[in-house]
Amino acid sequence: MPEEEKEPLPEEEAELEEETKDESGIDVEKTSLEELREVIAKKDRQGLLSIFERVPTIDIAEAADDLEPTELIYIFRNVESSWTADFFDDLTQDTKERLVQAMTDKDLVKLINSQATDDIVDTVGDMPANLASRVLKAADKEMRADINALLKYKDGTAGALMTTDYIELIGSLSVEAAMKAIRERGKDAETIYTIFVRNRQREFVGTVDLDDLIFADPQDKLDDIMNSDVVSVQATTDQEEVGQIFRRYDLNALAVLNDDDRLVGVITIDDAVDVMTEESSEDMARMSNMEPTEKPYLELSPWENAMKCIPWIMALLVLGTFTTMVLNRLESKAIFTNLPILIAFVPMLMDTGGNAGGQTTGLMIRSLALKEFSPKDIHRVLWREFRSALVVAAAIASFSFFWLLIEQYTGIVELGVLGEGTGSRVDLSGMNIWKGNCWNWEFGYHALINAGLIGVTMFAAVTVAKLVGTLLPIGAAAIKKDPALLSQPLLTTVMDVTTLMIYWAVAMAFFPQFAS
Amino acid sequence: MPEEEKEPLPEEEAELEEETKDESGIDVEKTSLEELREVIAKKDRQGLLSIFERVPTIDIAEAADDLEPTELIYIFRNVESSWTADFFDDLTQDTKERLVQAMTDKDLVKLINSQATDDIVDTVGDMPANLASRVLKAADKEMRADINALLKYKDGTAGALMTTDYIELIGSLSVEAAMKAIRERGKDAETIYTIFVRNRQREFVGTVDLDDLIFADPQDKLDDIMNSDVVSVQATTDQEEVGQIFRRYDLNALAVLNDDDRLVGVITIDDAVDVMTEESSEDMARMSNMEPTEKPYLELSPWENAMKCIPWIMALLVLGTFTTMVLNRLESKAIFTNLPILIAFVPMLMDTGGNAGGQTTGLMIRSLALKEFSPKDIHRVLWREFRSALVVAAAIASFSFFWLLIEQYTGIVELGVLGEGTGSRVDLSGMNIWKGNCWNWEFGYHALINAGLIGVTMFAAVTVAKLVGTLLPIGAAAIKKDPALLSQPLLTTVMDVTTLMIYWAVAMAFFPQFAS
Repeated sequence: MPEEEKEPLPEEEAELEEETKDESGIDVEKTSLEELREVIAKKDRQGLLSIFERVPTIDIAEAADDLEPTELIYIFRNVESSWTADFFDDLTQDTKERLVQAMTDKDLVKLINSQATDDIVDTVGDMPANLASRVLKAADKEMRADINALLKYKDGTAGALMTTDYIELIGSLSVEAAMKAIRERGKDAETIYTIFVRNRQREFVGTVDLDDLIFADPQDKLDDIMNSDVVSVQATTDQEEVGQIFRRYDLNALAVLNDDDRLVGVITIDDAVDVMTEESSEDMARMSNMEPTEKPYLELSPWENAMKCIPWIMALLVLGTFTTMVLNRLESKAIFTNLPILIAFVPMLMDTGGNAGGQTTGLMIRSLALKEFSPKDIHRVLWREFRSALVVAAAIASFSFFWLLIEQYTGIVELGVLGEGTGSRVDLSGMNIWKGNCWNWEFGYHALINAGLIGVTMFAAVTVAKLVGTLLPIGAAAIKKDPALLSQPLLTTVMDVTTLMIYWAVAMAFFPQFAS
Repeated sequence: MPEEEKEPLPEEEAELEEETKDESGIDVEKTSLEELREVIAKKDRQGLLSIFERVPTIDIAEAADDLEPTELIYIFRNVESSWTADFFDDLTQDTKERLVQAMTDKDLVKLINSQATDDIVDTVGDMPANLASRVLKAADKEMRADINALLKYKDGTAGALMTTDYIELIGSLSVEAAMKAIRERGKDAETIYTIFVRNRQREFVGTVDLDDLIFADPQDKLDDIMNSDVVSVQATTDQEEVGQIFRRYDLNALAVLNDDDRLVGVITIDDAVDVMTEESSEDMARMSNMEPTEKPYLELSPWENAMKCIPWIMALLVLGTFTTMVLNRLESKAIFTNLPILIAFVPMLMDTGGNAGGQTTGLMIRSLALKEFSPKDIHRVLWREFRSALVVAAAIASFSFFWLLIEQYTGIVELGVLGEGTGSRVDLSGMNIWKGNCWNWEFGYHALINAGLIGVTMFAAVTVAKLVGTLLPIGAAAIKKDPALLSQPLLTTVMDVTTLMIYWAVAMAFFPQFAS
């Protein structure tokens, strides 16, 4: 790789993460806790500013998370708010709270009013009441009103994501006038790349992209150049939908309307990106039967981590009882006591059933999340999955048939193994593919039947698994439940039990002579 | 929900997807194949344009995918290219190819040169050679050069994602001059929201956001207002990294540099969003042991679908052989032939081990994908997981102990079930918690031991599972393999076998008297 020619900066050698990033060809300056400590201790304002000029704020914030509040306050007093605004937002919630506690009212007022409203709302939302009220007191009247308004929206809705710092102009305005308005009011706006246009009735009618404004004739009216084919959502819309809309329509910003079609807020792409990440993390957690968390891994305490795991394992354990029950009953059937070797294949059969179903469930969960189809398409999807299920089942069945022969002929599984003195009706103990130096027909015959038995069971199990794996997530989505929530855990149990029943039924058919 | 008051538009009643969207508070106009067919058949140019004014192009494209090439060509001839450019890009690859085949050279030239270079590159890259060469012929000289240059980069790298339609200006330029340059050259640029700044040596030195230009004094130099704390990547950088950078640094556009630090291309947020989606879909596919695909579900034929599934199930089946082997051997041990009830718990134990490990693996895969930590942090992570593993193991162990008692006392599992005539040394056949009307001590004793056996096995199995579940993905990442690729399949096998061995060992310790 060409990057290796470049020799890494001293800090980068120190911090390991950088190194890997460097290898992967990403070029970004970093800082370290030590460097920050040093410039602050030396009250070296220039040095501090140069760090902010060189290094993206989020990287500074990451290094700064372990600074003392007093040290942090030095930063906020000496760096201009255009930087500290992002810097504060990039700190961890915990550090933010320590800081708010330690700051003087004067510093706090400066800090809070330099922040974007929606960022402050997120922070305040997670703060203990006493700190939250400190922040609210610090915010100026108008901002406080906005914060309180936004705090009302339920987490996970468009309302909770949106900001009130946007630019809305009336359509009759000329491009020239619009640019003037943007220059005046744009500084506090979260984005000026999308301008929102309203009519005389204050209803939202469309958007104008900043670049269109720039290319347009100064005398044009916004009405003439705006895009009227725009998407908008309600404040109650689920954030997952918001992510899908940004993805589908390649938006920079999305209008949030109330019931009278008036603009109440705007969601920007950076927040939408976070939501997409959050939503797919959630699905992945669900897929591995775990409670999702919004915290980054290293902020998650081992205890919290455990609490996310335990309920699901317990639930699955209880569900698993059905498997125990069925196996417990079947075990006592003559067929299994006579041919205990059949038991040895049970885990393999169950795993395969689970795997085949899991693939389909995973595919369904993802496609539903990306709105590639909706529960209403169930017939279409089911028919597709049925056909591919047959292909997969046929392939796996024939493969396992031959694999089973190999397993037995090579002695990987010992056909004869029955345990001492279990007095089985067929004594295959220590039986082997060769009797003396000639082919052992009895063995060959048994091995063949076993292989056939597994093959047929596989075919049925895989087909059923794929269909169940299709129905569970779509069913969940149809009743407006998170497809990832129910499908995965249910699948295992359903398939374990189904596979066992199929296995038993087929075994009875294949070995009628040992069935009693 | 307030939306329910609104009555849906006629088309929306027709198409089911809309309805659900409407419920969720998303407000967007739609069209349908029928509507398009009608306006085209009637050669109703106005009607067609009004659709494009009302409806986002991607929704039109979705409806238009089933139109005849001749009908599509009518659209391209009558709608201005500012719309048809996006419209073409939103069509499915298959439709694009049918169209390119059917178009006259004249139409094709107009279409291709209205396209963004990186979009054309994606399309051409997947086209059969004869069509690809048609497209290249249609492109003007400069564009053809760009396309050929971009086609060189390996799929999945920054180079393959980037566009060459960007604005790069020299830092000594004044804001006024810059705005002039943007007005002149900005129309063909993919984005003008981020302007890329170079020095006299043509090296990339920073970026200027369009809004900063607008707020700046016309006489300022770009050097003075530009952000110099910018991230950039190499053309060889993996697209997963690109997604992470956009997420981390909230970028609108990212600079791609060559070894001489010169700008060779730019990646825009919309492409980055697609990459993030693609990458997390890939991880999810891996997590459900399936080959990832880039195609949306409904474009994936059942056959292709099956091909994504089969290899993995087969691989897992072969891996599963170890489980069969071990169980096959253990089955013959006196302990299991004497107490066949123990076999009934095997699937539950295996599932729990798999689930506990799966949770951790899922968490690791996701955290690694989001760069929440790197393989170098393995000690830290392992120590965290070890502690939470102990908590989980303790909880599950004690829970399963009591659950096992319940299972047995209620007769959910029948302790006595041994099958007729297996001549076990302990005959618990039909044994029950009550002997006549008094407590059956022998039963109680056995049930208790069984519960204890399961509890202890659970504790060991869960602890091991969590540690294995941590090590597999981090190990994979450390050797630069996709953590999701190896961890999931290996985990099941490793845990199945490990759990069995633990179970057997503990059983021997608990039932020495039945161990031979």
